[in-house]
Amino acid sequence: MDDPTLSLVLFSGTDDKLNAAAVLTAGAAAMGWKVNIFLQYWALDAFRADKIHKEHGVAPEAGPGGTEALRRHGGQHWSEIFGQAKEIGEVGFHACSLSMEMFGLKVEDLDPLVDDQEGVASFFVDVDGPVTFI
Amino acid sequence: MDDPTLSLVLFSGTDDKLNAAAVLTAGAAAMGWKVNIFLQYWALDAFRADKIHKEHGVAPEAGPGGTEALRRHGGQHWSEIFGQAKEIGEVGFHACSLSMEMFGLKVEDLDPLVDDQEGVASFFVDVDGPVTFI
Amino acid sequence: MDDPTLSLVLFSGTDDKLNAAAVLTAGAAAMGWKVNIFLQYWALDAFRADKIHKEHGVAPEAGPGGTEALRRHGGQHWSEIFGQAKEIGEVGFHACSLSMEMFGLKVEDLDPLVDDQEGVASFFVDVDGPVTFI
Repeated sequence: MDDPTLSLVLFSGTDDKLNAAAVLTAGAAAMGWKVNIFLQYWALDAFRADKIHKEHGVAPEAGPGGTEALRRHGGQHWSEIFGQAKEIGEVGFHACSLSMEMFGLKVEDLDPLVDDQEGVASFFVDVDGPVTFI
Repeated sequence: MDDPTLSLVLFSGTDDKLNAAAVLTAGAAAMGWKVNIFLQYWALDAFRADKIHKEHGVAPEAGPGGTEALRRHGGQHWSEIFGQAKEIGEVGFHACSLSMEMFGLKVEDLDPLVDDQEGVASFFVDVDGPVTFI
Repeated sequence: MDDPTLSLVLFSGTDDKLNAAAVLTAGAAAMGWKVNIFLQYWALDAFRADKIHKEHGVAPEAGPGGTEALRRHGGQHWSEIFGQAKEIGEVGFHACSLSMEMFGLKVEDLDPLVDDQEGVASFFVDVDGPVTFI
């Protein structure tokens, strides 16, 4: 493929899924992929400037053992991994307009990683390859 | 891409994910995409004629604040958004045969949005582009 | 498409999602697709040799009724369905290096279904078509 694009719909706002999304984004960017991220619902809420560095919980299935392994392993916060992916590749973060309205948010309420807000139809204009929902 | 197709595997049956799926379907249909939806497990259960308009809960991570924002925001029910997507574009709903058997359901037990039931191999025959699991 | 490839990122480790993933893999393999599976987080944990045949729970939304329908329906365990998919098609299981490190696992701790471990960048080298996150 020439100029492959990964379109990522981020819906979930737990630290384990956001970490998985950040690792996939970094891996794709490192391999020359463009990554287009659409932030919805609980993932959008997790990108609020006043919340992004707080704990966002993990999936219920993690259980106490899984949560402990995740916290103990530490490493970088998912927001830092996303930031690095943005430095090495073409990675865009777009807040879903409908979710912004639902939470009563403006773009300036979000972390500076987020580039802009757009509607779902605009998101599909840029789709050219996989569409992955996390 | 000519005639792009979005293949959507709907697994989850909570109102937040079904709403996200409906919005993505409507956005794709508005941009000229064909959308093929495969209903499995809890999503299939949510499409039962006697359940589709009831509350189906939200992801545990929503918390009381998120649930309240979702309910307060209101707007259209996801089944209405799916219905409009079907009017403006080529959107098909196929119930997974294995899940139908698991729940002991027949096509007439489901909401009229659902076109038919099919096996997973038939679903893959029509895949031509992204496969998104929600 | 010639030689289509389904790239599957398995993140979730509950029996309902693993069963859905196994059915999709078997369906894709039956239709001549190559399937590349990347095991992360709770899905990786579920592939540990000493855990794969134990119960891994279901999504919270299943409720008591859904859980009962799933257990009663029975049928084959998802690990058997994955095994059959591997016999009929080209299906590879790759453990995510970062998740292996997080859990302190070696490849020999995993079920023999798993072929090897690799980093996320290597996973993207083989992506050629849909990328589905479960």
